[in-house]
Amino acid sequence: MKNDRFLRACRRQPVDRTPVWFMRQAGRYQAEYRAIRQKHSLLEICYQPELAARVTLLPVEQLGVDAAILFSDIMVPLAGMGVAFDIVESVGPVVEHPIRSAGQVQALTPLEPEESVPYVMAAIRILSRELKVPLIGFSGAPFTLASYLIEGRGSRTFTRTKQMMYAEPAVWHQLMERLTDGMSRYLAAQAAAGADALQIFDSWVGALDEADYREFVLPHMHRLFTRLQGLGVPLIHFGVGTGHLLHCLAEAGGDVIGIDWKTPLDQGWRRVGHGRGVQGNLEPTVLLGPWDRVAARVREVLRRAEGRNGHIFNLGHGVLPETSPDALRRVVELVHAESERKEAR
Amino acid sequence: MKNDRFLRACRRQPVDRTPVWFMRQAGRYQAEYRAIRQKHSLLEICYQPELAARVTLLPVEQLGVDAAILFSDIMVPLAGMGVAFDIVESVGPVVEHPIRSAGQVQALTPLEPEESVPYVMAAIRILSRELKVPLIGFSGAPFTLASYLIEGRGSRTFTRTKQMMYAEPAVWHQLMERLTDGMSRYLAAQAAAGADALQIFDSWVGALDEADYREFVLPHMHRLFTRLQGLGVPLIHFGVGTGHLLHCLAEAGGDVIGIDWKTPLDQGWRRVGHGRGVQGNLEPTVLLGPWDRVAARVREVLRRAEGRNGHIFNLGHGVLPETSPDALRRVVELVHAESERKEAR
Repeated sequence: MKNDRFLRACRRQPVDRTPVWFMRQAGRYQAEYRAIRQKHSLLEICYQPELAARVTLLPVEQLGVDAAILFSDIMVPLAGMGVAFDIVESVGPVVEHPIRSAGQVQALTPLEPEESVPYVMAAIRILSRELKVPLIGFSGAPFTLASYLIEGRGSRTFTRTKQMMYAEPAVWHQLMERLTDGMSRYLAAQAAAGADALQIFDSWVGALDEADYREFVLPHMHRLFTRLQGLGVPLIHFGVGTGHLLHCLAEAGGDVIGIDWKTPLDQGWRRVGHGRGVQGNLEPTVLLGPWDRVAARVREVLRRAEGRNGHIFNLGHGVLPETSPDALRRVVELVHAESERKEAR
Repeated sequence: MKNDRFLRACRRQPVDRTPVWFMRQAGRYQAEYRAIRQKHSLLEICYQPELAARVTLLPVEQLGVDAAILFSDIMVPLAGMGVAFDIVESVGPVVEHPIRSAGQVQALTPLEPEESVPYVMAAIRILSRELKVPLIGFSGAPFTLASYLIEGRGSRTFTRTKQMMYAEPAVWHQLMERLTDGMSRYLAAQAAAGADALQIFDSWVGALDEADYREFVLPHMHRLFTRLQGLGVPLIHFGVGTGHLLHCLAEAGGDVIGIDWKTPLDQGWRRVGHGRGVQGNLEPTVLLGPWDRVAARVREVLRRAEGRNGHIFNLGHGVLPETSPDALRRVVELVHAESERKEAR
């Protein structure tokens, strides 16, 4: 029987304790992960189901978190759409032929997940047998993926991405449609393989203002979430630096909206609406400071959640490599201890 | 007689037309600037008053803006406090010995602007003779400068900066005090040399949440603005990605608060309070798209200013290198045409 605290919170059902997991809970802050990465590249881990499963399991065993998240990268399914890329150390994804033309968009192939990324589904099958906590599958959102495809790598200003939006809106929308189709197939396959929940990372969409989000992104996200609703698993929708867009993210879809660390959780939840769950939002850097400060900030997040059903404790962004595993373990214990309900409401 | 539209707007007095200038209006988007940079590094321009003045004047002549901003870099005055640094192409400031200890903080020397950065004051004196529009002097804010000093260069996560704040708050506050003292002397000297207004760039302070801003930054900013008030020139306070902090920035000080492009101007102005002026906030990337879209977005910013006194039109961040000078020129014309008041109110 699985620990179902996380899934109950996703559905805004009463829980015995607030569930906790951490974005990037498998990563460089772990000695075991660093040892594996000395032998294997990030993509090699993604491509080997046994290895991906092992890396996924590590933090669950070490930290006592209430959910696992598949170890993978948002770029992985794009290989199945005909995109050649690599993940370069301290650079991130690098796309071999950045997409700049209608012809390149039309050349993208529809994703057949079980055929083109079978290793992802295999890893999920292993994990759904072995895990005692729910497994979160995930994908990048179309905007964030499009930005890598167009820029060719990460960006601060997203100049070329926005140039395509503004100057060639038809090409932009066609690219977004292809990615929406691909990701909806990819996420459906993950759920079929055994993922208990799905998180959609629109990591960089905070680079848009509301007008641009509404025109260039929201219709596609709405279509994506509408399709995913039928899968029967909870959907989490997250982006960094999206304080100004939270109401739009909620409008686009998701049972749970991730709140990044810049927006106080109570304010964020009001903007999202109390009819949805929220996930977040401890400032990741706080974990590098003294424990007293960490504990105070953890309690502050819980205080702002006001004991409401539907809160999943997380960081407001990924775990930093400099973080000590011990600090994360203590956060899990503290959240569980402080949030214990005498009787589930 | 100078065009005083900009200074009147800073003081929330009626104007005939909404004043316009652009952050980074002297820069790589100009062929003339690129030609000068082929012969001189950025710092060489800063160190030669005639050259700095020439670069400052270029956009005023080319674009018809209502204010000039001294061509310099926020790192420049730190040379006068004993900091060795360089500005490296496509990296930005690089500090030779990043500050990590109390001893290094204590070794910072008090700034004597006329002795240690005389070339800045000389450039201002030239400009205040030659300009037909007001001259904006500027400095970096203590947090933003401290982040360069501690990290040694730009950062996305400001990990070391926050580590010092959390783990060694006494050292942090001492560093902030030294920088506050230095910048208040530097800005006072600029006003004495002829700067008509002063902008304080807390460019990266949006990397803090409100709790950290209040504890680690606000007291120092409040002290800085209190000291500067006596100078009798308008003070502008700006940071990027500060939508969640606008009310704190206003609390810290400034006659005009700069609104970055992610916050709709009317919402930002409400958060700042209508008792202050605001500056902003066209999305800089919009300028890379078709003119119809640019014009619509310019009108949208003006609409959100609601014809209120105290609006200075600007971008919501600096001009991008890919921008065409012609687009900026047309924006100036459009703002002036659309905002013309029949009678100054």
